[in-house]
Amino acid sequence: MRDLTTGVRLLSEQQRDGDLFSARCPSRDVLKHVTSRWGVLILIALQRGTHRFSELRRKMGGVSEKMLAQTLQWLEADGFVVRHAYPVVPPHVEYTLTPLGVEIAEKVEALADWIEINLPRVEASRSQ
Amino acid sequence: MRDLTTGVRLLSEQQRDGDLFSARCPSRDVLKHVTSRWGVLILIALQRGTHRFSELRRKMGGVSEKMLAQTLQWLEADGFVVRHAYPVVPPHVEYTLTPLGVEIAEKVEALADWIEINLPRVEASRSQ
Repeated sequence: MRDLTTGVRLLSEQQRDGDLFSARCPSRDVLKHVTSRWGVLILIALQRGTHRFSELRRKMGGVSEKMLAQTLQWLEADGFVVRHAYPVVPPHVEYTLTPLGVEIAEKVEALADWIEINLPRVEASRSQ
Repeated sequence: MRDLTTGVRLLSEQQRDGDLFSARCPSRDVLKHVTSRWGVLILIALQRGTHRFSELRRKMGGVSEKMLAQTLQWLEADGFVVRHAYPVVPPHVEYTLTPLGVEIAEKVEALADWIEINLPRVEASRSQ
């Protein structure tokens, strides 16, 4: 059973470590979904607005249809993404961030931005 | 060849997408390392201070020796972690964040904190 105090902002180090560092911690699944290779890119893409499945696929170099669909299902189940299927032929399916999704996308994008901006410093480390 | 302007803070959307969304983008490797299951936890653990290999392993529920060593090697090559091996018997190896590592660890931790704090909202979405 989850300790209710973990919802409080000021987590003690012991609470934090006891949580995220535990193999059974439910935070790990969410972390896995949003930081997966395609999860990060989906969240950033959807921050720019609603996308169709085919648009997302085109935007992400190298993603397979299966992996894109799987990652979207994770994000939908976690409440970060809403899927809207229009009853038309051919099928028209759109994906949009929820308010919860907008919040986490900001954190994910802050990390991605840092990496892009500091990549020259990382590459300098590698060449040493 | 990498576009030099991507090092500038104000990236246009086109530059960003052309970068991170490209399969050949070098940012992707860094993103993969720091958001890997163990990469996240190592960065957060080392934010609390220097750790020995055995201490890190104990702290992370479920990590194998091989995966921990592999992830530490990635983070060391990227310039986020410094490895110090003392010439003693038995071997004594310590890991510490570099200044670059401290910066990225802050972004990674902000994301992890968000997830821990908002987990009840995510779990409420799942149960719907």
